Amino acid sequence: MTTIQEMGKKAKIASRTLLTAGEKKNDALKAIAKALRENADKIISANKIDLDNGVANGLSAALLDRLKLDEKRINGIADGVLNVAALPDPIGTVISGSTRPNGMEITKVRVPLGVIGIIFEARPNVTADAAVLCLKSGNAVILRGGKEAINSNKCITYIMQDAIESAGLDRNSVQLIEDTSRQSSIELMELTDYLDVLIPRGGKGLIQAVVKNARVPVIETGAGNCHVYVDESADINMAADIIYNAKTSRPSVCNAIETILVHENIAEKALPVIKARLDEKNVELRGCEKTRAILGESVVPATELDWDTEYGDYILAVKVVSSLHEATEHIAKYSTGHSECIVTKDYKNAKIFTSTVDSAAVYVNVSTRFTDGGMFGLGAEIGISTQKLHARGPMGLNELTSMKFIIEGDGQVRI
Amino acid sequence: MTTIQEMGKKAKIASRTLLTAGEKKNDALKAIAKALRENADKIISANKIDLDNGVANGLSAALLDRLKLDEKRINGIADGVLNVAALPDPIGTVISGSTRPNGMEITKVRVPLGVIGIIFEARPNVTADAAVLCLKSGNAVILRGGKEAINSNKCITYIMQDAIESAGLDRNSVQLIEDTSRQSSIELMELTDYLDVLIPRGGKGLIQAVVKNARVPVIETGAGNCHVYVDESADINMAADIIYNAKTSRPSVCNAIETILVHENIAEKALPVIKARLDEKNVELRGCEKTRAILGESVVPATELDWDTEYGDYILAVKVVSSLHEATEHIAKYSTGHSECIVTKDYKNAKIFTSTVDSAAVYVNVSTRFTDGGMFGLGAEIGISTQKLHARGPMGLNELTSMKFIIEGDGQVRI
Repeated sequence: MTTIQEMGKKAKIASRTLLTAGEKKNDALKAIAKALRENADKIISANKIDLDNGVANGLSAALLDRLKLDEKRINGIADGVLNVAALPDPIGTVISGSTRPNGMEITKVRVPLGVIGIIFEARPNVTADAAVLCLKSGNAVILRGGKEAINSNKCITYIMQDAIESAGLDRNSVQLIEDTSRQSSIELMELTDYLDVLIPRGGKGLIQAVVKNARVPVIETGAGNCHVYVDESADINMAADIIYNAKTSRPSVCNAIETILVHENIAEKALPVIKARLDEKNVELRGCEKTRAILGESVVPATELDWDTEYGDYILAVKVVSSLHEATEHIAKYSTGHSECIVTKDYKNAKIFTSTVDSAAVYVNVSTRFTDGGMFGLGAEIGISTQKLHARGPMGLNELTSMKFIIEGDGQVRI
Repeated sequence: MTTIQEMGKKAKIASRTLLTAGEKKNDALKAIAKALRENADKIISANKIDLDNGVANGLSAALLDRLKLDEKRINGIADGVLNVAALPDPIGTVISGSTRPNGMEITKVRVPLGVIGIIFEARPNVTADAAVLCLKSGNAVILRGGKEAINSNKCITYIMQDAIESAGLDRNSVQLIEDTSRQSSIELMELTDYLDVLIPRGGKGLIQAVVKNARVPVIETGAGNCHVYVDESADINMAADIIYNAKTSRPSVCNAIETILVHENIAEKALPVIKARLDEKNVELRGCEKTRAILGESVVPATELDWDTEYGDYILAVKVVSSLHEATEHIAKYSTGHSECIVTKDYKNAKIFTSTVDSAAVYVNVSTRFTDGGMFGLGAEIGISTQKLHARGPMGLNELTSMKFIIEGDGQVRI
């Protein structure tokens, strides 16, 4: 038995104790928050090793910043843990129920998924965030973080395990794979005997590798080639505000937009207004021929590749379309199914857009940047699913659960 | 582009028209039912070729019977189609909704999954059953049936496609892969660009092959190593009735039981009563040492393998256990997570059993044979999921859907 399989076995055992752990789960979360604060120095020392290695290995300033933990960030993580503790426990919720004609009573109740695997990159805060969401929803978790953060991750995990044990739960409820070789992540992806679901959190490369290689059920997260369509009837200033917000407030995140589609009857008036707003942040535009005819040669000519690209940067593709239908067909072809918006005053067009655009979040006159568990009122978020199975859009605690049927009777048999 | 990829592309196009097909879906179902009846002779002729080939290839009598279609069975299929037409349309159902503090209105609505793949074996009735459930729930479907039924499947599919077209929908809403080579099913399992989910329907070998090879999301169905635990306090006659029903009413199906666990304090009284009932159907018992000490040498000694086997036959493994805990641990170790039952008069033991047994359906004093979409009141069933993601237990129309968020506002941006 390999180490990963042994971890799977231990996680499965821990997951059975979590089925009926009730309020002990919150005791564990509170103990984790306290321990993270009390051991901030220890975490910062471990993180220092990762940062030094990162500098030696030539990590970019942006990556080093993501990797860095200081007292303020650790307190932020601990606050987040307490927020999760304060959320209602999803486990045991009765989803539906009925009494069948033969008198047997059927109740559908929410139960944990069991054992969850999380594969993520060099963000040590994910170690605690993901672990406590899994724990709160009654799941054991096996974490596999990036090698850049391994010392931070180990330190945080040991602190959490001790805290979990102090609350009377199985310390193997949270485990970290310390071997950061490619082999260990492959073994996790093939852990069919123990893993109920694997959730990758990170860039496109990571997610595609997991989808391609996993033998266990996967929830795809994060890819966001998002669109704003400016309808013929749009309020131009509203369109410019929404596009400015959706592109520039945080270009690296998945709910930021990458392409705007502008109806030809409003393009001549709208595009200069939109460009003026985006110029404030020096957003590079890549436009179709009609866009360039209106905005001039300074706009880079867009190629087929631009419609397909998640820039994650201050770059925006622009296309003039001749109809709402052309816009929704463009979205159907190029979107990753994350978030799309129509800006319109036209009731019918709004309804056509929301019914024909098949993405996790479809907006009318609202910035796509709201696709987020916190903004949607879920209280917490483990990621944003861009697949259609099990969970779609922001995933909160409920999305980390399954359900079962309980059937009670007095001797019913099937005739 | 391979044929399978072309089919995927066509299915995707069809799925977009189904998003807003509304009542036309029911028109199509009614047209299918009518066309199946009107073309019964044609179907029977095509089926005759499959049956002749089956005889020539030495198929067993049981398989030939499953393969066979006659007028009565075709009418039964058509009746089933009309039953599905009469069910409420799941699409567009509002699951939940709220207005956020910034005034944006969020509505979570049920939408189709998109494109569903179904891989099944030599049961031509599945062709129509699966297709109409997918169609009713707004999904395009690609069917891949076994080679034994290929002539029947082709005939039924063409009839359905014509009927769908006559109702004004895209005939590619239902497609059949006519190439029954191993290669075609591999390509279907790897059709990540087009397939939203793949559902295997058939025996253990088929399901395991799909889980192992698929790159698309899969819903595992059907494996059922189910248990009845006879508690110390059980009503012995009720236990015998339930065991008799759960084992012998249809031994080949997945909700039939394979092992019974009997508390040692009741074993001496209960086992002879249970055996007497099972003897009526000549059920072979394979027992642990304690079982054999009570029931005698005629009981075959059980080995480790017996606890792990889904016999699907008139064979039952029997184990005497010393506690409820030993029973639930045995179930945790060997169960496939389908259906388990406790027979008990003890309230506390019933509650411990239902909270600690982690299977799709957990019964108290009711036969496991009720795990079925019809029996649970779902109106129809595409299969019984034994995984925890997306759907668990009997899958009806709701389980063939996804959902999306619609967010409406008047210019909200994220600060």
